[in-house]
Amino acid sequence: MNIHNRVTELLKIKHPIIQAGMVWVSGWRLASAVSNNGGLGLIGAGSMKPELLREHIIKCNAATEKSFGVNIPLLRGDVNELMNVVLEEKIKIVFTAAGHPGRHIEQLKKHNLTVIHVVSNIKQALKAESVGCDAIVGEGVEAGGHNGPDEITTFCLIPQLVDAVNIPVIAAGGVADGRGIAAAFSLGADGVQIGTRFAATVESSAHEVYKQSVVAATDNSTTLVLKNIGLVRLIKNNWSKNVERAEANGANEIELKNLLGEKRERLGISEGNAEEGMMEAGQSCGLIKNVLTVNELMKLLIDDFDNTMKKTSGLI
Amino acid sequence: MNIHNRVTELLKIKHPIIQAGMVWVSGWRLASAVSNNGGLGLIGAGSMKPELLREHIIKCNAATEKSFGVNIPLLRGDVNELMNVVLEEKIKIVFTAAGHPGRHIEQLKKHNLTVIHVVSNIKQALKAESVGCDAIVGEGVEAGGHNGPDEITTFCLIPQLVDAVNIPVIAAGGVADGRGIAAAFSLGADGVQIGTRFAATVESSAHEVYKQSVVAATDNSTTLVLKNIGLVRLIKNNWSKNVERAEANGANEIELKNLLGEKRERLGISEGNAEEGMMEAGQSCGLIKNVLTVNELMKLLIDDFDNTMKKTSGLI
Repeated sequence: MNIHNRVTELLKIKHPIIQAGMVWVSGWRLASAVSNNGGLGLIGAGSMKPELLREHIIKCNAATEKSFGVNIPLLRGDVNELMNVVLEEKIKIVFTAAGHPGRHIEQLKKHNLTVIHVVSNIKQALKAESVGCDAIVGEGVEAGGHNGPDEITTFCLIPQLVDAVNIPVIAAGGVADGRGIAAAFSLGADGVQIGTRFAATVESSAHEVYKQSVVAATDNSTTLVLKNIGLVRLIKNNWSKNVERAEANGANEIELKNLLGEKRERLGISEGNAEEGMMEAGQSCGLIKNVLTVNELMKLLIDDFDNTMKKTSGLI
Repeated sequence: MNIHNRVTELLKIKHPIIQAGMVWVSGWRLASAVSNNGGLGLIGAGSMKPELLREHIIKCNAATEKSFGVNIPLLRGDVNELMNVVLEEKIKIVFTAAGHPGRHIEQLKKHNLTVIHVVSNIKQALKAESVGCDAIVGEGVEAGGHNGPDEITTFCLIPQLVDAVNIPVIAAGGVADGRGIAAAFSLGADGVQIGTRFAATVESSAHEVYKQSVVAATDNSTTLVLKNIGLVRLIKNNWSKNVERAEANGANEIELKNLLGEKRERLGISEGNAEEGMMEAGQSCGLIKNVLTVNELMKLLIDDFDNTMKKTSGLI
């Protein structure tokens, strides 16, 4: 892998491989390990109070001299406090998701931050570009966790985004090996964001039960639920079956919110309750057969990418 | 595009580009045009009675000296008659879908036919390989028309199939341009099957209203409905909204079958009733901006593939 492009320049990284910010998964350990191995690590603020985020940023700074970033879900009630922590701790790269970046970008740009917004359709991409985002992550519906309502797949989304915007497009959703990285570049992406594969690493903060659930998962282990109150992809379990049954019976928003309850992501990913928690994972979990260190994984991704490119190089 | 591999050898074609068999779309005109331009054309028997299929085969034979095939949905009540027509007319290549190829393969193999089965998950792929299919089409959930129940996307499905079977894997679902073809090969496919892009050609039998609906479609124009009685992807319209409303209210199978009624595919695709018919199309319709002749399209696909491969060739 010998890629020098707009994404590697923008993020000051060796390889255009970004580790997704993931709740209960991507603290300073994972983010610093990815950055130390040539990618971009992201601290996932989604499961952190502002002061915990500060602690993770400080520890990440101590663990790496390389570039890293913070992922902030914009629908958080305390989003302004999270942004303040990012600015106070002199973070240089912010990935925003689940909301409109327009409200925050002026402040971030005033402090010269790089701002990358996660989108799931063309409309969101054009909006992100128009407010001044430096790049977008285009996330297909195969991605784990929260998904856009249009359910556009990576294969269809990425080329349409590339045609629609001038800023770089980073492909997310379904990328778990070097073949996926090569395919993303064929579709026109300038980088990839990888989630679930990094969630099943030694440095991930997820519970061991969660990591082993990802490893055990096959091609049809995930499902999409809660379309009416916020689409989520997760590994099928007792809880997801209850939700699907309720949905098939026409449950309304209140009933679904009651089924969701509180802290169900933590119950699954962090506490390892594989049957009653939300075990958020991407459809690519079927490709993941082991828990590796980040160092092992990054080497594997790069070797696998190189092998894929060599194999396809003779096709013209 | 200079590909000589197991798929081009098996099907005796210049380019490993297969035009999907599509109801009300792919008769002898489309199939012969694709074969004459270096791909593999398929007559879609799904919307044909046995004698009409025979007529299309005879006309296709008269229109091309190249290899072409027939796609047969195995759930058809008159599947045995369709198979007999195929054998009597000395067809060499059959694509089977929507059912178990095991019941028919012995007869087809006795006559030395090449048999390729369409699958949507690993289990179906292993089954197809075990009964003796020569190759499989792996069809992601972005594909138009009838889809597998597991909703696995092309990006996640193809590499898992490639890892699971030894026979060649042809990628379908989401492929509409040269970037998609290149991405499919990166994921490990040995060929592509393209549907919706060929449905919007001059030689397609679809109604002009249908073709223009594909051209007008954007990234989020399709939806998946009828999960409980047989998942279908189509362009959103008045009818699909009625179905979605019924599904959200917990409609049962009988109610959904009543909403479906009869001949709704014909009403949409062949008769051009854009609001009340089933306008089956893949999510890649957002990438399709014009109606081309098959000759123009094949040239475009190949040029676009070559350009994509040249762009990505410097990445290692």
